[in-house]
Amino acid sequence: MLIVMQAHATEEQVAAVCSKIEALGFRAHSMPGAGRTAIGITGNPGALDTGLFDEMKGVGEVVRVTKPFKLVSLEVKPDPTIIRFAALKTDSGSNIPEATIGGNELAVIAGPCSIESRDQAFAVAERVARSGAKFFRGGAYKPRTSPYSFQGLAEEGLKILAEIRQRFGLRIVTEAVDDDSLALVEKYADMIQVGARNMQNFALLKRVGRSRLPVFLKRGMAASLEDFLLAAEYVMSEGNYNVALCERGIRTFSDHARNTLDLSVVPAVHRLSHLPILVDPSHATGQRFQIQPMARAAIAAGADGIMVECHHAPEKALSDGQQALMPDQLDHLMDDIRRIATVVERTVAAPRAVTEVANVATR
Amino acid sequence: MLIVMQAHATEEQVAAVCSKIEALGFRAHSMPGAGRTAIGITGNPGALDTGLFDEMKGVGEVVRVTKPFKLVSLEVKPDPTIIRFAALKTDSGSNIPEATIGGNELAVIAGPCSIESRDQAFAVAERVARSGAKFFRGGAYKPRTSPYSFQGLAEEGLKILAEIRQRFGLRIVTEAVDDDSLALVEKYADMIQVGARNMQNFALLKRVGRSRLPVFLKRGMAASLEDFLLAAEYVMSEGNYNVALCERGIRTFSDHARNTLDLSVVPAVHRLSHLPILVDPSHATGQRFQIQPMARAAIAAGADGIMVECHHAPEKALSDGQQALMPDQLDHLMDDIRRIATVVERTVAAPRAVTEVANVATR
Amino acid sequence: MLIVMQAHATEEQVAAVCSKIEALGFRAHSMPGAGRTAIGITGNPGALDTGLFDEMKGVGEVVRVTKPFKLVSLEVKPDPTIIRFAALKTDSGSNIPEATIGGNELAVIAGPCSIESRDQAFAVAERVARSGAKFFRGGAYKPRTSPYSFQGLAEEGLKILAEIRQRFGLRIVTEAVDDDSLALVEKYADMIQVGARNMQNFALLKRVGRSRLPVFLKRGMAASLEDFLLAAEYVMSEGNYNVALCERGIRTFSDHARNTLDLSVVPAVHRLSHLPILVDPSHATGQRFQIQPMARAAIAAGADGIMVECHHAPEKALSDGQQALMPDQLDHLMDDIRRIATVVERTVAAPRAVTEVANVATR
Amino acid sequence: MLIVMQAHATEEQVAAVCSKIEALGFRAHSMPGAGRTAIGITGNPGALDTGLFDEMKGVGEVVRVTKPFKLVSLEVKPDPTIIRFAALKTDSGSNIPEATIGGNELAVIAGPCSIESRDQAFAVAERVARSGAKFFRGGAYKPRTSPYSFQGLAEEGLKILAEIRQRFGLRIVTEAVDDDSLALVEKYADMIQVGARNMQNFALLKRVGRSRLPVFLKRGMAASLEDFLLAAEYVMSEGNYNVALCERGIRTFSDHARNTLDLSVVPAVHRLSHLPILVDPSHATGQRFQIQPMARAAIAAGADGIMVECHHAPEKALSDGQQALMPDQLDHLMDDIRRIATVVERTVAAPRAVTEVANVATR
Repeated sequence: MLIVMQAHATEEQVAAVCSKIEALGFRAHSMPGAGRTAIGITGNPGALDTGLFDEMKGVGEVVRVTKPFKLVSLEVKPDPTIIRFAALKTDSGSNIPEATIGGNELAVIAGPCSIESRDQAFAVAERVARSGAKFFRGGAYKPRTSPYSFQGLAEEGLKILAEIRQRFGLRIVTEAVDDDSLALVEKYADMIQVGARNMQNFALLKRVGRSRLPVFLKRGMAASLEDFLLAAEYVMSEGNYNVALCERGIRTFSDHARNTLDLSVVPAVHRLSHLPILVDPSHATGQRFQIQPMARAAIAAGADGIMVECHHAPEKALSDGQQALMPDQLDHLMDDIRRIATVVERTVAAPRAVTEVANVATR
Repeated sequence: MLIVMQAHATEEQVAAVCSKIEALGFRAHSMPGAGRTAIGITGNPGALDTGLFDEMKGVGEVVRVTKPFKLVSLEVKPDPTIIRFAALKTDSGSNIPEATIGGNELAVIAGPCSIESRDQAFAVAERVARSGAKFFRGGAYKPRTSPYSFQGLAEEGLKILAEIRQRFGLRIVTEAVDDDSLALVEKYADMIQVGARNMQNFALLKRVGRSRLPVFLKRGMAASLEDFLLAAEYVMSEGNYNVALCERGIRTFSDHARNTLDLSVVPAVHRLSHLPILVDPSHATGQRFQIQPMARAAIAAGADGIMVECHHAPEKALSDGQQALMPDQLDHLMDDIRRIATVVERTVAAPRAVTEVANVATR
Repeated sequence: MLIVMQAHATEEQVAAVCSKIEALGFRAHSMPGAGRTAIGITGNPGALDTGLFDEMKGVGEVVRVTKPFKLVSLEVKPDPTIIRFAALKTDSGSNIPEATIGGNELAVIAGPCSIESRDQAFAVAERVARSGAKFFRGGAYKPRTSPYSFQGLAEEGLKILAEIRQRFGLRIVTEAVDDDSLALVEKYADMIQVGARNMQNFALLKRVGRSRLPVFLKRGMAASLEDFLLAAEYVMSEGNYNVALCERGIRTFSDHARNTLDLSVVPAVHRLSHLPILVDPSHATGQRFQIQPMARAAIAAGADGIMVECHHAPEKALSDGQQALMPDQLDHLMDDIRRIATVVERTVAAPRAVTEVANVATR
Repeated sequence: MLIVMQAHATEEQVAAVCSKIEALGFRAHSMPGAGRTAIGITGNPGALDTGLFDEMKGVGEVVRVTKPFKLVSLEVKPDPTIIRFAALKTDSGSNIPEATIGGNELAVIAGPCSIESRDQAFAVAERVARSGAKFFRGGAYKPRTSPYSFQGLAEEGLKILAEIRQRFGLRIVTEAVDDDSLALVEKYADMIQVGARNMQNFALLKRVGRSRLPVFLKRGMAASLEDFLLAAEYVMSEGNYNVALCERGIRTFSDHARNTLDLSVVPAVHRLSHLPILVDPSHATGQRFQIQPMARAAIAAGADGIMVECHHAPEKALSDGQQALMPDQLDHLMDDIRRIATVVERTVAAPRAVTEVANVATR
């Protein structure tokens, strides 16, 4: 159920409708749009009597939501969701302006699979910053298929990530895997990643739904589009509306790449949902030679950005080195997507002259 | 790395080897077998010098494990794992003997998808007990695709399950989804289920690996056999060796059933691992008319048992009613698998004359 | 559209309805059942006016067929299709009674992947005949993934197969791949196999639809159940109603077997269609250790029979030796399925005392 | 086995090597490259003695081919295959220059799913010609899942296609499904399409391998990359080296589009083979709103062109109207890919001022 307020409805009128919804024992989700505010109702066992709201001041119309998902739906919020990251000042005094995911500028999230050491992370971060990418990725908690593989540096890794934000002005996207790691990610990072293997870890989804940080939700390897949107709905139903989706390949018989990048999900998401959808060609393909073509393809298909792995010495990486771009390849890719972006009427940030140096030893 | 002790090795010799392993900073997993004890080593970054152990008393041979999984492997433990559930006495004084999963007798785990109420659960449990099944399933925490679907009765449901054990002598298998629910499942149940959607929730796997209860691990919908065995390895690497696997269907294009039951995984598991493997035809097919044929097929394929949904009034079930057998169908299925069991040289428990009545109102 | 005749309708009345259908420019398919005859209409562009037939003598009711397939549907023919192979006399004078596919007796089709030589084929055939199997398989035209793999002996192979029928009384099932090979298969064999890779070779399907021989149609690796039934519909729409279906595994990500045997298609076919459905565990799994478990499972799931590869010296086979049973394993499998057959209320033929000897040199 | 001739080897020397290969009973495939000629050998049962050729004049080196495919491999022919279509003159006297597939200019093949009538085909063809596309597609023989669906106009459709070539100067790509249709396609068209459902119809592949026309080979819905390349190898092993591959979506669980477009196969093909690879976003997605994004993505991923359906009145199409672009959308798409082509260092032909009119009635 969805209540669309009139264009001129006042904040008081919106609040009154929300109060009534809560008084009925349900949950109200006020979603301001460009023209008018919509209020989603969740927690109701079935369709409500529309007469409950029809006569309230400021109410435009009361509509039933026809999809199994509500808050992620374009029916509830026709304007694209733009996730905003506030401006910040680096340690050296540089002013880094606001960054967005879902806005006109495409978001580029780059960095190593895992944070392995301060030196490694800084070396990569400097190049990521120079490339023009505004977001830095790097795992401190790594969900690895084998219990005997490198599992990440945990809080030590998060501290390095926080330092990188302050040094290079990059926003930090990193994965949380349970309550404990989530509490720490919330302390050090800018955006919480939920990995593909946890896409239907509903306990975790509910918990990140109560976080103040935006959420980067990767599609599960066996998830249909409906499963994927309902996972986002779990987060949003708890009150966190800043969710970015990420396609990262599905499991199929096709064995020339690690997974099959399902790019046509990009227009399919945009047709149903206001949430931004990014693409991760590194995990999808697992092979360096396929990353640049698939990253270009993602932008051409209309994705709101990419997440891509980058490592200054991939042959020495502790995890997934074969799916990381070299720094020069990242620069080249950024050039390519800058040119493709104009075709899809988007922009990509220019390269940055980074004055900070990555040489951590001399600092 | 695996140390196979001599047939006559003493407990002290085994302990000495374990101590040496721990002193090296690794973890020792002593796995007694029919003939001799094997000691698995985990935590070592690469192959160890075999000379470290060759000369110790009681050591038979030091072998490298060639598979990516160790503790689940037949190389480490050639005898099948038998998970034992101690004998118990019901409230009315009946003596219920020990039950097993992985032994000669096939395990049958039956019950509703969700515990909906005490009346519902008792009505089903009486019929499950009469059928000869020794294990009762029923979800108190339900991982549902939509946040707006029934999520289970939580601790109230667990208390009903515990009552069912005491009334009918059925062992309780129920799902945990996070730390909080796991602590409660450990308090009330006999076996912890990890659901398909959490098969690669490694934080949860590690946590159940530290539990005293055996673990019922369902295969993820996109999990290869190696992924599946490595998920079990996560549990075992934390010291909990009582793991039963369960095939419950994979995601494919084939749309005549909810998922595709991948029965040939049964002989494939038995070829690689000592762990028991059961089959859940209810979730795999999602349709009542396919459950009995697929349950029979599972036993014929050599499965160590089945998990099957049963409901006394499936048309009223709050979740997945269309994939539950009627109680009479369960009786009929038990008859069928008793006959097929002889072909694969296994047994199935006889029907029970249950004197306890399910009518909870009159109790 | 389907015209169900009254129980007492005369042959003349049936013929009159068929004539009217043909006069309208459509095709009539008369399908006699246990109780009454149904007449399927194909070739009509849309629903016909039921008034065209309502008043004709002997017409019971005129019903719309609600599925995309017609002639394969239980709506058109509620009794199971039984494909009959006439009694025959061997060269040595043994009388071999009628054999069936789809009747109460389960059909077992066994033999090598390819006919490699007369010696090889006879050696295998003797053991197949002794096992009690009544059908012999063996490829003379092999659709191989690589153009450089052994492609079969062509007509020479078919001649060997025809000799085997006369020597051992086994019915011959063998694959045709185009018009030329089909003309020869019709000359020498008893049943035409259409392979998985040709399941949607519609030109071939139409051509076998005009054959007098029954058709053994294997499911394509990417075929949904609807695709599969529509492929059978292609054959039947040309007038050949003797079609047996065969599940042989689908392509999925699951890599512990060559393909994923989708056994739940067996009850799904029986719910929609009167056609028999068999299962080929050899091609599905590609590995000897999985064949017996999956063959047992197929029978337990309700399949109308199995097709299984058997070779007297699999290590020397020119194709697919690793998926062939040894002759002793075939005997053992036949014993197993005889016992499982009773559970599903079917029978399996007893072992045969074959007096013919396979030693071709001394003949 | 592959014989790489020296850069200065004469035609006579090449011929002498070929003669020797043929004399040995094998087949020689001479493949001239930019720098030097390579001669592939097929038909040999195993590795040949390299000494047979080492001493012959003009021989550079004799190398073993390490892949299961030979003639499609970059090892045999490191230069990309460019398929050339000769210049032609239209009925009205326009000179249409040579067209290519696999060259620097991207190939665009557009047209309706089926040829339905002369009016329909001409109306679409005029718009296709104006858009700048140089190839016209349209089925005269339609492999349809149901025998009751429109099956194409057969030779009548081919005649219309031949007229379109002469009127608009478009090259004709159309499907053959068996020997009879192939003979007619060879008579009227410029390129033979082998459809996805026939990708492993090896009899058809061998037959088109003996055609003088180039072949447009679509990937089967369950085909791995190796299967796909080996299907092309079937064609090439018969002597027809002009093969273009086409990705058109694979069967997966993902249900937001008809199939899953596996775009990462594009760089994977280019890494292994010299054959051009195009992409068909119409059949892959089955939905109009996904065609343009996926066509752009294909070009960005490095495809050598696209095949796209276009219909002047898709709501009236006899087949697959929902996956056809409107003519204005085709123009828009051509603009987009012209801009993306520059990023991947390719070109796309400019729009054409077509003086011929499509109004067939007034002609």
